[in-house]
Amino acid sequence: MTRKTIEPGCTLGIVGGGQLGRMIALAAANYGLKVHVYAPDADSPAFDAAAVVTCAPYDDAQALTAFADSVDVVTYEFENIPRATADLLARHAPLHPSASALATTQDRLSEKEFINGLGIPTAPFRAVDTPDDLARALDAIGLPAVLKTRRFGYDGKGQRILRTQGESDRNAIFAEFGGAPLILEGFVPFEREVSVVAARAEDGSFSAFDLCENEHRDHILALTRVPAPGLKPETAEAAIAIARRIADALDYVGVLAVEMFLVREADGAERLVVNEIAPRVHNSGHWTIEGALTSQFAQHVRAVCGWPLGEGARVGGLRVEMRNLIGDEAEGWRALLAEPGAHLHLYGKGEARPGRKMGHVTRLMP
Amino acid sequence: MTRKTIEPGCTLGIVGGGQLGRMIALAAANYGLKVHVYAPDADSPAFDAAAVVTCAPYDDAQALTAFADSVDVVTYEFENIPRATADLLARHAPLHPSASALATTQDRLSEKEFINGLGIPTAPFRAVDTPDDLARALDAIGLPAVLKTRRFGYDGKGQRILRTQGESDRNAIFAEFGGAPLILEGFVPFEREVSVVAARAEDGSFSAFDLCENEHRDHILALTRVPAPGLKPETAEAAIAIARRIADALDYVGVLAVEMFLVREADGAERLVVNEIAPRVHNSGHWTIEGALTSQFAQHVRAVCGWPLGEGARVGGLRVEMRNLIGDEAEGWRALLAEPGAHLHLYGKGEARPGRKMGHVTRLMP
Repeated sequence: MTRKTIEPGCTLGIVGGGQLGRMIALAAANYGLKVHVYAPDADSPAFDAAAVVTCAPYDDAQALTAFADSVDVVTYEFENIPRATADLLARHAPLHPSASALATTQDRLSEKEFINGLGIPTAPFRAVDTPDDLARALDAIGLPAVLKTRRFGYDGKGQRILRTQGESDRNAIFAEFGGAPLILEGFVPFEREVSVVAARAEDGSFSAFDLCENEHRDHILALTRVPAPGLKPETAEAAIAIARRIADALDYVGVLAVEMFLVREADGAERLVVNEIAPRVHNSGHWTIEGALTSQFAQHVRAVCGWPLGEGARVGGLRVEMRNLIGDEAEGWRALLAEPGAHLHLYGKGEARPGRKMGHVTRLMP
Repeated sequence: MTRKTIEPGCTLGIVGGGQLGRMIALAAANYGLKVHVYAPDADSPAFDAAAVVTCAPYDDAQALTAFADSVDVVTYEFENIPRATADLLARHAPLHPSASALATTQDRLSEKEFINGLGIPTAPFRAVDTPDDLARALDAIGLPAVLKTRRFGYDGKGQRILRTQGESDRNAIFAEFGGAPLILEGFVPFEREVSVVAARAEDGSFSAFDLCENEHRDHILALTRVPAPGLKPETAEAAIAIARRIADALDYVGVLAVEMFLVREADGAERLVVNEIAPRVHNSGHWTIEGALTSQFAQHVRAVCGWPLGEGARVGGLRVEMRNLIGDEAEGWRALLAEPGAHLHLYGKGEARPGRKMGHVTRLMP
């Protein structure tokens, strides 16, 4: 394919039909782009905000080819698309972030090796491909530790915490994961979780939003506070510098999120340990819709289209809180609409299953 | 039809496919609504942001019926839909604003009679149905004066300024308008043009955005400044009170705009004269997307769905400027994307014809 300049009026292809795709589509429409969403589920939330949709599986080469041929640039809203799918798309249209950035970050093992290779700390880890590997890894890392599938996990799915030796029947545990390649990660004694959401453009320009503090409940993000309160300014700077080194090393184009643990040393020093990289817009960046001069979704569209990045500063320097509405929490929508200063977002999902992200609400405070 | 409560997940029908419909659709999607757009043109900008579209003429009773039966509530993005169309829609679904509010405001004669009936001043006017009417109207109103079609005019279309007696060949002028019902309006010696964009809910609650000052070029809105600079606070309050009286008298549900002339008396006093009412979201309210706590589009969705109105205050008390991008002005999109603090919106229109509104840019300033 020939490289073309993307202009308003062009078509942005989005792989994946969830709320992230929906919010990218809304941001793209605001810039006069057409949006074509590719997703396997007929009731994908992003379909409702797209000009064109393709409902087909991620391994349907014919549908993927037709999709990529019909758009001007392709991006994706989640990292669990197969590498072969990404490679196929990239042969037919510019793909941002690249298939190699995706491959590095969608596998917890290659991701951690990549991060350590940059001299950036992560939790200790060992690859686990057999029950014997698990025994050796537990010896090396100790307890507690977390056993995770290397690929296709999210929101705590595909992981198990190992706390005591009694739990350590290697064969049974290994069988539980159905033989998928695993990784054992050491426990990081963190004080809190933080994340950097940032954009990098093809020309290397970079724009980070302010450091966020994230609270999880049942492994699902519940609350994001920006700026992360009570941290040393050097820590926030260091976190953003880490995100930039990662983005540069991946030759990354688009928005990415780097989740980190903040460890408080005995002497009060603050140390950052990278947990994982999300090669996409991120739940901890939803606050940017009202809270930043450019939203993460608009920023992602700018980056993948080869347009100048926007300013990521917080609007009016206000503090921001973003709360996810999980499952039946979205039933409180009317009260949230009536609450002065609350910005409600709902994703148009039909069924409010427990643990399902139905929407979020953002509040700006002096 | 039975009256039902509109909830997220319901479908909002929008009649009209232009940029106003597109921006209503984007706001509705953000609240988890499905959007169904009805418009006659296949390349309607709003189609790209809708979950469902119907492409059919405004007098296609069968298509209108199917559309209204398939949605939970109907609104419209412009006032030039036929009364019969509005009545038909209202028999099949709740229609907001109502068919009667539409009928009153879509005809310049009934609109001015309605406004004067509330004791609110307008320009002097006379109905003109024959060349003889025109002669009598010119005698009564004097020159200069503006002859306008009573219905279906916008952006200066369907109007002609009469400045001198030499222009006053009544028969020729009358023929120019093709026999449409006309109105002759006296010239108001205004210092500037202002507008109030406001929302009224079914329960009578009301929320106005700050008074805007508008500059037109070639009869098309070029620039909106908020708050209207240099006016007495009482004048802004009076303008909003006028909009509220109008909305109450129309039993209005949704966002409306009231355009007014500001007349400066010899003694410096400021006097307001209503020019026209737009029974819909309005170009002079586009600044609210970034500039207000709730955008006019979100506010309109709230009102027509029977939801609580949001706060209309300006974000951080900042001053706001909104400039339309007309015709080839939209070609400067890349520079606007690169300009710190400029918020660019493009409407996805194909051809940048002269006079065509292609997008707008909003700037917030301390």
